[in-house]
Amino acid sequence: MSKVLVFGHQNPDTDAIASSYAFACLVKNAYGMDAEVVALGTPNEETAFALESFGVTAPRVVESAKAEGADTVILTDHNEFQQSIADIADVTIYGVVDHHRVANFETANPLFMRVEPVGSASSIVYRMYKENNLEVPKEIAGLLLSGLISDTLLLKSPTTHMTDHKVAEELAELAQVNLEEYGKGLLKAGTNLASKSESELIDIDAKTFELNGNAVRVAQVNTVDIAEVLERQEAIEAAIKDAMATEGYSDFVLMITDIVNSNSEILALGANMDKVEAAFNFKLENNHAFLPGAVSRKKQVVPQLTESFGN
Amino acid sequence: MSKVLVFGHQNPDTDAIASSYAFACLVKNAYGMDAEVVALGTPNEETAFALESFGVTAPRVVESAKAEGADTVILTDHNEFQQSIADIADVTIYGVVDHHRVANFETANPLFMRVEPVGSASSIVYRMYKENNLEVPKEIAGLLLSGLISDTLLLKSPTTHMTDHKVAEELAELAQVNLEEYGKGLLKAGTNLASKSESELIDIDAKTFELNGNAVRVAQVNTVDIAEVLERQEAIEAAIKDAMATEGYSDFVLMITDIVNSNSEILALGANMDKVEAAFNFKLENNHAFLPGAVSRKKQVVPQLTESFGN
Repeated sequence: MSKVLVFGHQNPDTDAIASSYAFACLVKNAYGMDAEVVALGTPNEETAFALESFGVTAPRVVESAKAEGADTVILTDHNEFQQSIADIADVTIYGVVDHHRVANFETANPLFMRVEPVGSASSIVYRMYKENNLEVPKEIAGLLLSGLISDTLLLKSPTTHMTDHKVAEELAELAQVNLEEYGKGLLKAGTNLASKSESELIDIDAKTFELNGNAVRVAQVNTVDIAEVLERQEAIEAAIKDAMATEGYSDFVLMITDIVNSNSEILALGANMDKVEAAFNFKLENNHAFLPGAVSRKKQVVPQLTESFGN
Repeated sequence: MSKVLVFGHQNPDTDAIASSYAFACLVKNAYGMDAEVVALGTPNEETAFALESFGVTAPRVVESAKAEGADTVILTDHNEFQQSIADIADVTIYGVVDHHRVANFETANPLFMRVEPVGSASSIVYRMYKENNLEVPKEIAGLLLSGLISDTLLLKSPTTHMTDHKVAEELAELAQVNLEEYGKGLLKAGTNLASKSESELIDIDAKTFELNGNAVRVAQVNTVDIAEVLERQEAIEAAIKDAMATEGYSDFVLMITDIVNSNSEILALGANMDKVEAAFNFKLENNHAFLPGAVSRKKQVVPQLTESFGN
């Protein structure tokens, strides 16, 4: 077997980077595999905060496995092909560690696949360290903790699994940080949107979903002030229209998530706004609407869109 | 949550029945779930031998989850929808334990999914008993051992994983049987083809694969004498043609597997015989050809067909 590349999804968030970094270390140490962590994009500001906090260098960015001389890959924090490396259909998928729905995923051969409906892929990777009786070094614990905090908005999202609280406590101890204090600092680092152009903003944390033949882009930004983001609505819409034209998205749904009060404003454009409105039982006014209590794309947005778009 | 149905694939083989039976017991005992094992078909003669050996009653046969009042299911030993319960697309898939490729599988929500490239789903279920510190009762050990023996032809198939040997030893001890002796008796019980009609014979262990838009049926029968099966070729072909017309299969590939010498004769009919010949680099003569060393549909037939049929 050639070198194995380990990576999270495109537009990596903190959980994608953390889970892939930690899992690459695990397969090297526990299974003796020649594995290298790489990334399908540069870390966002929140992830950069986590990496810097624990003295870890960002994984290098790659676009193709074959171009790196690798014909075997391991995916963390995703499984859908359109969220993965460009040549995913041409390489052997050795394993998957994920906490999302399974869709648009297919292999020719049996593989290792570990999917659990928990708050983060980092939670699962931590469990696998324990199962393999591997010590979790401080910096790995810090990254995994950051992945879990990021994906669950400090254990407040409905995606938080009952087992995640204990995982967070254990990881905070191993990482030698105060959970609340570190967690708030991490999330706040991800809300600095002022420095971003609108086209960067809509791409910070964005994934494409194939819904009944439509390519629906669902992006999310975290903020402490929804109104501040909406002040840039006109320029954001221009960036969205540009992305739709360039990438062929049928629809673009942007979640502007208030991480303090745990609500989201939905800004949406595209060909199927009737289906988007039906999904959330709201009326878009001037292309946006409030979705109280919604903070999770995975649990509170994508299933509703999937249902509404139909089969 | 309503009652959860646990089942293996259609045309259940010994591993499908064993893994689902044992996993239903596990989720009841370890997680307190209201789970019931059911089956998507009656046990074959080999499985009946295993059930009788350990005093276990065959799971009742169901055709639809909703008709049983269940909206949640757990799959073992399969994931592809066309091998599953009729209304699989309309129910919630809570979990999957499998050792096959992943394909034609999709969920709206995150789930528990445990796939490992080992010899049997039973091997994985046994590992999960150990992880959950659950005692394995004699009859469960006997069934799981039977599932592993059946799928690996007594650890001789190339699908056997290096960890399966120890699993088999441990299970044989727990089941209080001699591995070789019990294993040979089990496999021999599955080779009694004389009592079957040709339409039964081609359906003993058959699965449908969607290959590039074609519905390809791949069936397997075990025997100690390939020539004896080929004496019935004319009637078998009539049954195959009948099944193709009724079920809409584009192609039908029957593996007649010699479990003593570990070879197979391939009997194939359908629209894409050029692709079947290319897959195995042989020439069909009078619709059949010898495939030396081939005993595993999963490892030595389906990937080759998938590659040959293309995307």
